[in-house]
Amino acid sequence: MPRYRITVEYDGGEFVGWQRQASDQSVQGTLEAGLEKLTGGFVLVQGAGRTDSGVHATGQVAHFDLPKPYTLKAIRDGVNFHVRPAAVGILDAVEVPETFNARFSAISRSYRYRILNRRGPPVMDRGHVWFVPQPLDIPAMQAAAKRLLGCHDFTSFRAAQCQANSPIRTMDELTVTRHGDEVWVEAKARSFLHKQIRITVGTLMRVAEGAWTPDDVTQALEAKRRDAAGQTAPPEGLCLTGVGYP
Amino acid sequence: MPRYRITVEYDGGEFVGWQRQASDQSVQGTLEAGLEKLTGGFVLVQGAGRTDSGVHATGQVAHFDLPKPYTLKAIRDGVNFHVRPAAVGILDAVEVPETFNARFSAISRSYRYRILNRRGPPVMDRGHVWFVPQPLDIPAMQAAAKRLLGCHDFTSFRAAQCQANSPIRTMDELTVTRHGDEVWVEAKARSFLHKQIRITVGTLMRVAEGAWTPDDVTQALEAKRRDAAGQTAPPEGLCLTGVGYP
Repeated sequence: MPRYRITVEYDGGEFVGWQRQASDQSVQGTLEAGLEKLTGGFVLVQGAGRTDSGVHATGQVAHFDLPKPYTLKAIRDGVNFHVRPAAVGILDAVEVPETFNARFSAISRSYRYRILNRRGPPVMDRGHVWFVPQPLDIPAMQAAAKRLLGCHDFTSFRAAQCQANSPIRTMDELTVTRHGDEVWVEAKARSFLHKQIRITVGTLMRVAEGAWTPDDVTQALEAKRRDAAGQTAPPEGLCLTGVGYP
Repeated sequence: MPRYRITVEYDGGEFVGWQRQASDQSVQGTLEAGLEKLTGGFVLVQGAGRTDSGVHATGQVAHFDLPKPYTLKAIRDGVNFHVRPAAVGILDAVEVPETFNARFSAISRSYRYRILNRRGPPVMDRGHVWFVPQPLDIPAMQAAAKRLLGCHDFTSFRAAQCQANSPIRTMDELTVTRHGDEVWVEAKARSFLHKQIRITVGTLMRVAEGAWTPDDVTQALEAKRRDAAGQTAPPEGLCLTGVGYP
């Protein structure tokens, strides 16, 4: 059975998240339904990251096996046709060895969190940004972000329902940059804990508003208690932009 | 009566266009209704450009007179509150002299036309781009765009229903640039004819696909007949990004 890797874009606002659910529209379930229409049988689609409800992706990666070979064009254009009008699309498809696993072969996940930082509300980017109208101290956010780089016990930055065995993660990149009316928090790591980036953004926001110093962020990290860190930022600002493989 | 200038963003897909209509939701009518809720009386809102149905704006400018002074914050935040959930927002408000007129004082209008040029369909930017999956010859588009710079009779590039007295316009800037999966056509002029930019994009597309040469664009311009130029590109790719004043 040939194995294929796809790159997927979706608008998380129209899904209950990546993972298939009995009722409700998931990204995984929508792609599986599209592949079933294309091939005539059930196809299990396995993603690199199980994004939460409302979280978007421009560079999610998944793999699946098909009972017989299909051209890459047939997979991409065929599934894109069958999933319409759901807000998900296959950008690219390539054949990969059977040893490839979208989740376990991945060596990095990259996310972008977009904050709309202006007085006027979101219009063109409604549903794709977190609207924060008050002034933000970007240099302070940048200084605080540095405190979270490297290998740490991120217990303070994981959701209560996080199922990971270990709270130890290595944050390889965490940057804060302004782009016109927007502030982007971009994070890269081999893997993240459940809601880690949204809790990170909520914590950096405390610094941005002047309520916390970068030292308070270090203390939150060292406390190893979820309630020591900031709020969980809303899902609509978050987007999985890419997954890296060796 | 104090006069105010506002900068406005809207998602054109949710409106019949800028101009007020008896039924159907227009941007002008929505802002006027919001101002009426704020002030208690009818307020005429005059825009710099009457964008067509489906055309977006991130930098539309308009002016209006109010019966008594309001703070700029009260105007911006008050109207933004009252127009919800319509996809329009006031980004900025300033008081201006009575001699200021959003339309007649303007010395430039800037537009961006976004083409999504990849195999996968639009997802995150659905409704904000023109989807053109085939390969495009960008250098040829750039060469053709130069043929339309400067002062010309743009009869071939105006809609049949255009009400302008003269077809003479001066195209000050017309650029074609690639940004990842997108191709942007950006145009700047004191003013444009009705649908001039969309016809320009449709014409450049003929060159991008290899059907026309830049010389054919010059011939289309010189023919001074609408049917000598290309098709009218769809409205959803177009956005009024700014209006300039002395």
